[in-house]
Amino acid sequence: MKVTVVKVGGAVVEDPSSLKELLGEFCSLPGAKILVHGGGRTATKVASSMGVETEMVEGRRITTAPMLEIVTMVYGGLVGRNIVCSLSAKGIAAVSLTGADMGIVKAHRRPPVEMSGRTVDFGYVGDVDSVDAKALLSLMEDGVVPVVAPLSFDPVGGTLLNTNADTMAGKVASSLAWEGCDVSLVYCFEKKGVLSDPDDDDSVIRRITPSSFETLKDDGTVSGGMIPKIQNAIDAISSGVGKVFITSHRNISGGTVIERD
Amino acid sequence: MKVTVVKVGGAVVEDPSSLKELLGEFCSLPGAKILVHGGGRTATKVASSMGVETEMVEGRRITTAPMLEIVTMVYGGLVGRNIVCSLSAKGIAAVSLTGADMGIVKAHRRPPVEMSGRTVDFGYVGDVDSVDAKALLSLMEDGVVPVVAPLSFDPVGGTLLNTNADTMAGKVASSLAWEGCDVSLVYCFEKKGVLSDPDDDDSVIRRITPSSFETLKDDGTVSGGMIPKIQNAIDAISSGVGKVFITSHRNISGGTVIERD
Repeated sequence: MKVTVVKVGGAVVEDPSSLKELLGEFCSLPGAKILVHGGGRTATKVASSMGVETEMVEGRRITTAPMLEIVTMVYGGLVGRNIVCSLSAKGIAAVSLTGADMGIVKAHRRPPVEMSGRTVDFGYVGDVDSVDAKALLSLMEDGVVPVVAPLSFDPVGGTLLNTNADTMAGKVASSLAWEGCDVSLVYCFEKKGVLSDPDDDDSVIRRITPSSFETLKDDGTVSGGMIPKIQNAIDAISSGVGKVFITSHRNISGGTVIERD
Repeated sequence: MKVTVVKVGGAVVEDPSSLKELLGEFCSLPGAKILVHGGGRTATKVASSMGVETEMVEGRRITTAPMLEIVTMVYGGLVGRNIVCSLSAKGIAAVSLTGADMGIVKAHRRPPVEMSGRTVDFGYVGDVDSVDAKALLSLMEDGVVPVVAPLSFDPVGGTLLNTNADTMAGKVASSLAWEGCDVSLVYCFEKKGVLSDPDDDDSVIRRITPSSFETLKDDGTVSGGMIPKIQNAIDAISSGVGKVFITSHRNISGGTVIERD
């Protein structure tokens, strides 16, 4: 089966007009598809209005027990259900899932890590162990679009765990490739693709391979937050995903393609 | 197919120890089953901590746009996902659904109504039009327990609508009966059943039929909030549901049974 896994971040799904653009593109994709979403900005906003402080370390959220309740409400409730409403209104059957639903994404809690010379406990944060690709395929065979929240399931603790949405999308995509699917993975963000000149929105690098990535890093063409994003893409193709696109939500079949050498 | 639909209110699902008791009973039920849950107390608590005022008219929540976001987070996120986590931890595959997920419960927005001499607009509140019993059956045939939040889907407005959980459970049960299932419906609450003496917790009326219900109302044995609860049960058996139980979450196969004369 040909499957496209689209990951879309908070900035896109939380703005009604950009969500509409994205879903227009998403619906026009042929074949089976899965949407993996974020929602961090809304989580931070809801936390603040409930008097819960958001603490981030190197861009990653510390997930205390009250913060886990908030991300469960925001990712597993507000954001996921709103996407499903928009898809249903377009006549597309979709279902909002967390890792606990049908046990589709199992994980273990990340132990405290040494970072910047101190020990950081990220709290209820999960590192993914397995994805039940068969359950996702069974939904898609019934014509249902899985909409996956960045929450994995810890079967030992019996709780949800907060999980990075880019990682979640990568794990979902590679598990489907492992089941023999022909998988494309699309990371949507606010730019048109990976840019060779950050000040020129049209300087999209059309193709990156594992070896050209090394060159781009060495000569400083890509830096900062783009490095882990491209690394996720490289990891996905190493795990059997056919192609990865890093692109705008306005053009999810374009942008930068990451593929094997 | 034999199916049991269990409706459990906020007071039970929001307390970890009573939720555990309920799920123990629920898991021991033979055959296919569906859980329909409430969550109003948590919604009121979350609303209050976010500075959103809760307004009720005759026990029913006025659902403004901010309140719709809150019930989406609480019913469709926190409460439903926590139930699924608890079931998954017991090795039971379950999925948390709103009416928008796979379009299972379609509704229309309730127009303003005349109540107590004034016009009341309940806001984003839905009256159920249809339940897709086939979609629920297909999940159950795959061994998945549907966990249904009291949120229906308005395909015209493309939004969720807040819907009374007792009504939701009744509509789910009767739609399954319509598909030829042998359906039992269980309303769990804090008492052991319908009591003939409200001060005696053991005075459970074992059996109520449509005709004995008339007598019980006329002689004042049942009154207040029990009347709409029993009426919902009578409506369900008129729509093809085999038996309705009104009982404690500690004994979901007992309590008061409502059945045909």
